[in-house]
Amino acid sequence: MLRSIQPRQNTVSRAPSRRPAATAARRGYSARHSSHALVRSDDNARLADYEQRIKSSFDGIVPTLKRISAKQHESDFVAQAQRIAKTELGFELPMDVLNDAWVDQLDMRRLFAWAVFETYRRYTDDFNARDPLANSQDAGFDAFLQSCGFHTLDVTPCADGRLAHVVRYVLRLPQSAVRRKSHAGATFDIEDNIQKWTKVEMLRHREATPNEASEPTHYLKTVVYHFSSVDPDHQGCAAHGSDTAVAAKAGLDRLIGFREAIEASYCCGASVDLLLIGLDTDTDAIKVHVPDQNGNIDLDRSVDVLALFDETQGLSTSDASKAIDAAITECNASVQSGMQRFIAQLIENNFSQIAYVKSNHGGHYPDIGHAERFIGAGVGFEEVQLRNLMYFSYLDTVEEATKDLDVGVKIFSGLNVAHGLPIPFVIRFDYHGQVPGSKDRAQQRCSRVTDALTQRYKDLFDRGLLHVMQVARDLHQGGALNVFACTADTQEVGAH
Amino acid sequence: MLRSIQPRQNTVSRAPSRRPAATAARRGYSARHSSHALVRSDDNARLADYEQRIKSSFDGIVPTLKRISAKQHESDFVAQAQRIAKTELGFELPMDVLNDAWVDQLDMRRLFAWAVFETYRRYTDDFNARDPLANSQDAGFDAFLQSCGFHTLDVTPCADGRLAHVVRYVLRLPQSAVRRKSHAGATFDIEDNIQKWTKVEMLRHREATPNEASEPTHYLKTVVYHFSSVDPDHQGCAAHGSDTAVAAKAGLDRLIGFREAIEASYCCGASVDLLLIGLDTDTDAIKVHVPDQNGNIDLDRSVDVLALFDETQGLSTSDASKAIDAAITECNASVQSGMQRFIAQLIENNFSQIAYVKSNHGGHYPDIGHAERFIGAGVGFEEVQLRNLMYFSYLDTVEEATKDLDVGVKIFSGLNVAHGLPIPFVIRFDYHGQVPGSKDRAQQRCSRVTDALTQRYKDLFDRGLLHVMQVARDLHQGGALNVFACTADTQEVGAH
Repeated sequence: MLRSIQPRQNTVSRAPSRRPAATAARRGYSARHSSHALVRSDDNARLADYEQRIKSSFDGIVPTLKRISAKQHESDFVAQAQRIAKTELGFELPMDVLNDAWVDQLDMRRLFAWAVFETYRRYTDDFNARDPLANSQDAGFDAFLQSCGFHTLDVTPCADGRLAHVVRYVLRLPQSAVRRKSHAGATFDIEDNIQKWTKVEMLRHREATPNEASEPTHYLKTVVYHFSSVDPDHQGCAAHGSDTAVAAKAGLDRLIGFREAIEASYCCGASVDLLLIGLDTDTDAIKVHVPDQNGNIDLDRSVDVLALFDETQGLSTSDASKAIDAAITECNASVQSGMQRFIAQLIENNFSQIAYVKSNHGGHYPDIGHAERFIGAGVGFEEVQLRNLMYFSYLDTVEEATKDLDVGVKIFSGLNVAHGLPIPFVIRFDYHGQVPGSKDRAQQRCSRVTDALTQRYKDLFDRGLLHVMQVARDLHQGGALNVFACTADTQEVGAH
Repeated sequence: MLRSIQPRQNTVSRAPSRRPAATAARRGYSARHSSHALVRSDDNARLADYEQRIKSSFDGIVPTLKRISAKQHESDFVAQAQRIAKTELGFELPMDVLNDAWVDQLDMRRLFAWAVFETYRRYTDDFNARDPLANSQDAGFDAFLQSCGFHTLDVTPCADGRLAHVVRYVLRLPQSAVRRKSHAGATFDIEDNIQKWTKVEMLRHREATPNEASEPTHYLKTVVYHFSSVDPDHQGCAAHGSDTAVAAKAGLDRLIGFREAIEASYCCGASVDLLLIGLDTDTDAIKVHVPDQNGNIDLDRSVDVLALFDETQGLSTSDASKAIDAAITECNASVQSGMQRFIAQLIENNFSQIAYVKSNHGGHYPDIGHAERFIGAGVGFEEVQLRNLMYFSYLDTVEEATKDLDVGVKIFSGLNVAHGLPIPFVIRFDYHGQVPGSKDRAQQRCSRVTDALTQRYKDLFDRGLLHVMQVARDLHQGGALNVFACTADTQEVGAH
């Protein structure tokens, strides 16, 4: 096969080296890039519209509460406040908090937390009712994945909110078909993954789901570590001290530990496939560490997708695709063909996201640092596919997730507490409603985790600087979120 | 088939009613019962010898430390103390604690905890080196279990130490072939059991272990609740306020919840079999709630094995066996034949234990209340098959096991703390050494749980009234226990 394009050497990075600060910003892209043959512009427009709509609903909270605050000593305050809230936020605020304002002053911390929770609830219910991120190509994903030799795609990004959109935006994959379990520093729990692998294998054997166990496919475990091209020393991974090499190695070590555990625990060729991806949280461009024929990953070799995007600008669809293939082969000539096809698709998908950031934000996002609106902890949150919206700690217990939670609380101490605003925590445990008692158990888990959380951060909680909403969703029945309890409610549970 | 014996009506109990206090004591048994045709007297002698030997090693600690304490101001104290310790306990005490006695006084709490931990370590290593509870009949157990229609036997007794011997003594089953996960009130975690079921099914399909998935066998989940015939209002299950009916119902509810969860979560006839057993912790006699043909269990119908033992006294082996069968059928005529055979074996086995208690202790144990020597928490402890030796909380996290641990700490507050002695906690997470990193992860789990434990019971810990030894055993390699850390050590880890 003739290759009309040989990618230049610099598309293959020899080390996850830090790029000098602001290099990306200095590239000075114009609208020209949106003409890239592999970029799906219609998709980008729809995704941008959705991101803009949801984020502005959260970002309207502070200015609206400021306006309301300014009026709290006026005579028709309650009516004015509700009018403003309804107009600006789309919902009214709890009456009892407004009514009590004349005694002392408005409990702004509680109002802020309440408004964040209400906005989250409405956003989630809207997502579940309308499926706004659905894509016509999603239906073929399982078949494509299996054709590449994988029956399950399991992604662990960092808990960092700047990776919350990694599945649906950065990699353009259907969120419902990908297992996403976020951990600080992307250092996932190996036992938890063994349990998941075990369940997947059992279902393949017992129910031929998602495919027959006799099919020679593997479970693909992917770690996404991250770094900042604009400010590599300060805006990289907090859990790894913004050291990209440390972050990448920690992810690889965990991947290898998982594969070793599976291979040593089970017979008959039990194994998993591994993939390591780096994400530049400023440009959303990925680096892919292409595994060799034996599945081994080299930290020092990866495809630099941003460079590849630039180099394939203006090429035809066919030539750009060939350049992607060539870059993968150049990175690791012995890569297996299924993995090669899978990575090629990821790279092509990421091209659209690179163009998305360039079109909407120029060289890089304006918010290169943390700007999450709330912390999510537990199991669920499938709808959260937006950058910097939520810091996500996948957990069963606070005890096992102290590192993740401490990082999150530290981030929000800067974002919110430093400005007198509370940290909004959504504790969520989705359940399968067809199983009797599962909703009660979800509620008990929410309650247990809330107790442990408010105990661990007792000082913040006692000062009104940490609020918790406990929720769950029935994955079988679908429908709206169940709100079990909320510390921002003054009334009984379910009052809002 | 002719039945020469029809069991009298009273072998089937219509309700888990409380027997009047001290009834068992008033029965006034003599040595005659040891002539019961189905009792294995040689087994009993060996088991009694072992129980006596291990318990006396723990029970020698307090009198020995008392003798040593009396000498702490004598001039050759250290030499005398080590001589006494070596003779009475079989090991020397840590020199630094003895050496410091002249400054103030002996740190008896630390010495006590240290001696308990050392005794536990020696007992465990002895068990693993010599296999003292091995039985020639054990080899056939898996085949017998499968012939009854079950591929896995999973028993959840109460965490109460008076049930710690339920597998090897009360039911005379091989401890290595039975999964035992103890919880306060026998209220096991349904999610944990689903995970175990999932793994068992996966192994049957993938590795034909313990049998082929095509074999029509089930996972048998058994709950053992308990009650006290001598003092039913005070010495029943602490987690259920000594209310036998509540304890039995809580066990049954959990069993049904587990079966419902399996059936609702998986297709193709996925299900489990259930068995509910009551244990009189004074006599070690069981009550078996025989399930009907559909696996349903009636709380008000059970075989009273103590009454059946009395009635079958003096009969031939064959007639006694027939009486057991008849009692089971009378309790529930529609019982499935495999379950009938399994229960018959449990009842016959329990006859030996009833005789054991009668022979060694008369009508009932002298220690009808709690008399545990330490608390075990974590995953492991297979060697602990002795009554009232250990309070066992099967757990992954303190957060999920607060109820179990609170009950245990309450029990030991009466047993130890009230007398100025600390609560000895053994935290243990066994691991599969062939899996790289598994030992490190076991150590991290020990450390995490210890942190959470000493945080939860901070007051006791700070006052020297709670000591922790962190251990793990390599289940693959075998061999001795690894001691990771011990709060009773003044030296570095591994000093004793």
